[in-house]
Amino acid sequence: MRYAVLGTGDVGRTLGGRLVGLGHEVVLGSRTKDNPAALEWAGAAGPRAGTGTFAEAAAAAETVVNAVGGQVALAALEAAGAQHLDGKVLVDVSNPMAFEDGQLTLDPVGSDSVGEQIQRAFPGARVVKTLNTVNCQVMVEPTLVAGAHQIFVCGADADAKAQVTAMLGEFGWPAERVLDLGGIEAARAVEMYLPLWLSLFRQFGDADFNIEVRRGR
Amino acid sequence: MRYAVLGTGDVGRTLGGRLVGLGHEVVLGSRTKDNPAALEWAGAAGPRAGTGTFAEAAAAAETVVNAVGGQVALAALEAAGAQHLDGKVLVDVSNPMAFEDGQLTLDPVGSDSVGEQIQRAFPGARVVKTLNTVNCQVMVEPTLVAGAHQIFVCGADADAKAQVTAMLGEFGWPAERVLDLGGIEAARAVEMYLPLWLSLFRQFGDADFNIEVRRGR
Repeated sequence: MRYAVLGTGDVGRTLGGRLVGLGHEVVLGSRTKDNPAALEWAGAAGPRAGTGTFAEAAAAAETVVNAVGGQVALAALEAAGAQHLDGKVLVDVSNPMAFEDGQLTLDPVGSDSVGEQIQRAFPGARVVKTLNTVNCQVMVEPTLVAGAHQIFVCGADADAKAQVTAMLGEFGWPAERVLDLGGIEAARAVEMYLPLWLSLFRQFGDADFNIEVRRGR
Repeated sequence: MRYAVLGTGDVGRTLGGRLVGLGHEVVLGSRTKDNPAALEWAGAAGPRAGTGTFAEAAAAAETVVNAVGGQVALAALEAAGAQHLDGKVLVDVSNPMAFEDGQLTLDPVGSDSVGEQIQRAFPGARVVKTLNTVNCQVMVEPTLVAGAHQIFVCGADADAKAQVTAMLGEFGWPAERVLDLGGIEAARAVEMYLPLWLSLFRQFGDADFNIEVRRGR
């Protein structure tokens, strides 16, 4: 598969590196052509790894991963170009972290979500929200955490969710541990989980954790 | 222990009934003296169960449980009277559910929480937020759900949290499954978990579930 991974931070480089390691072609997209983090990543990741602008990355891709922060996701996807997203699976792993008086909050929150904003702004894209509930190391190596912990997917397009579930399977998430929460409006639910993730992170002092949903006996 | 449980809905009656069953004295508080749900509950719950106004319930209690909805919590506690809350452990189990265009949202959300609102409005009360992340049946009978799933506590007062942890232990939550998230500002984290709880409830079709936080191997 030819992937565009938009964003050159920890999340983008980690996801991109894992996809290359699995045999996929990945263009890491950034605002500028000569992003040093992207060039360094591509040099280390090998021949199937490339770099480019958001638009160049998206144009070449069959599947696009949004790995920029939730606050800049719409701008990055606008730069990528709606015509390069139409009909493609668009995997959104972002969280809308914002700061207010020095404290973390979310924007949007409550009655909207980044996942929904992206789907509304790019109606031709097949948006699937996933992976935003774990640290990027756990995203691509779920065995870092013990137990049958789960990852969530949501989105309007069942085929797109099936394709993303297959990608998650390559990362090491068995299909039975991928919980489908329904339409893209469930992005609110998974994005609003972030403050609990952050509270747990503060208590534990490390990011190697996740939740396992347990049911009736 | 003499408890006031404020609120005569499912949550209040379930918590009150469980506390009576454990040998505690409980006054179920409501806006009016002759609340039919409260009277029926007390008739069934036996001699250690009583009813009264919010103020009567709180005045008689050593520990107060806020089991009214998050949207009306401040009004109920105002009616209970700050002088009847001063120095007491105030257990807040509420969620600030609101509806906007027919869809569930939270109010407050993001940069505030009901737990914090209560602590600010009643600085003499020793507020502990807990139990709002599970259905009321699971609150008082955690064995309804398989596994070592957890319950959260937060609040400024360590002794108050220890007392609440003991109460949770009586309900069936072993101390090692009570996760302390720190100060009352962590109420944001557990209240913002509600949309994920609701998404899971919609997928499962039943409320007998909870999350188990899994950590590194």
